[in-house]
Amino acid sequence: MSYIDDIGWNSDGLIPAIAQDADTGLILMVAWMNREALELTVEENRAVYWSRSRQKLWRKGEQSGHEQQLLELRLDCDNDVIILKVNQIGGLACHTGRASCFYRVLRDGQWQIVDKVIKDPKDIY
Amino acid sequence: MSYIDDIGWNSDGLIPAIAQDADTGLILMVAWMNREALELTVEENRAVYWSRSRQKLWRKGEQSGHEQQLLELRLDCDNDVIILKVNQIGGLACHTGRASCFYRVLRDGQWQIVDKVIKDPKDIY
Repeated sequence: MSYIDDIGWNSDGLIPAIAQDADTGLILMVAWMNREALELTVEENRAVYWSRSRQKLWRKGEQSGHEQQLLELRLDCDNDVIILKVNQIGGLACHTGRASCFYRVLRDGQWQIVDKVIKDPKDIY
Repeated sequence: MSYIDDIGWNSDGLIPAIAQDADTGLILMVAWMNREALELTVEENRAVYWSRSRQKLWRKGEQSGHEQQLLELRLDCDNDVIILKVNQIGGLACHTGRASCFYRVLRDGQWQIVDKVIKDPKDIY
């Protein structure tokens, strides 16, 4: 019985994975994993996701260099969400050049951008 | 144009919502919202989810008293995940009586329980 068999995959064979900065607790992003992505994440000690849009494995940082080194993996009580506590190389996870993908806050009925761009995306990719 | 119209609902009309303790950064749980749940969350300033198993609105804490007071709502760059920064009444979010639903860590190929029960579930419900 492997840890893999405990996972409650959804109907597409995927599980959502939350990447959280291990030091600050900042939630960096949410992506998806299939069985192979999770196994590779554990084997390689870095975040490997399944890209739903590209339908392929996605080693986070393979283009940008902004890898996520895995420090801890947690599973919730329903077996259907995973947390990766990571060391985010380069200090930014979002393709917009921000630390976190969650850079908008609801204020006055609008999603307002509250976090700054750390690095111009055209200097990342 | 309402903030609601920016949400990229999935094929079931839902969006995953991460509840995070506003003080500590602890990720408490992940649940789902439909349009009505999100609107009620904003109106009532407390977490209201859509229970997929019971197919009904679920005001977190309606049975346990462990409400989640809403302090901030964030949306990710893909418009398909929400973070609720909350004040967790009672200091525990999980139906097992633990602070967080993510109380198991992968160690030696097994999901090992690492967080303690704060309150016996039979004293909660």
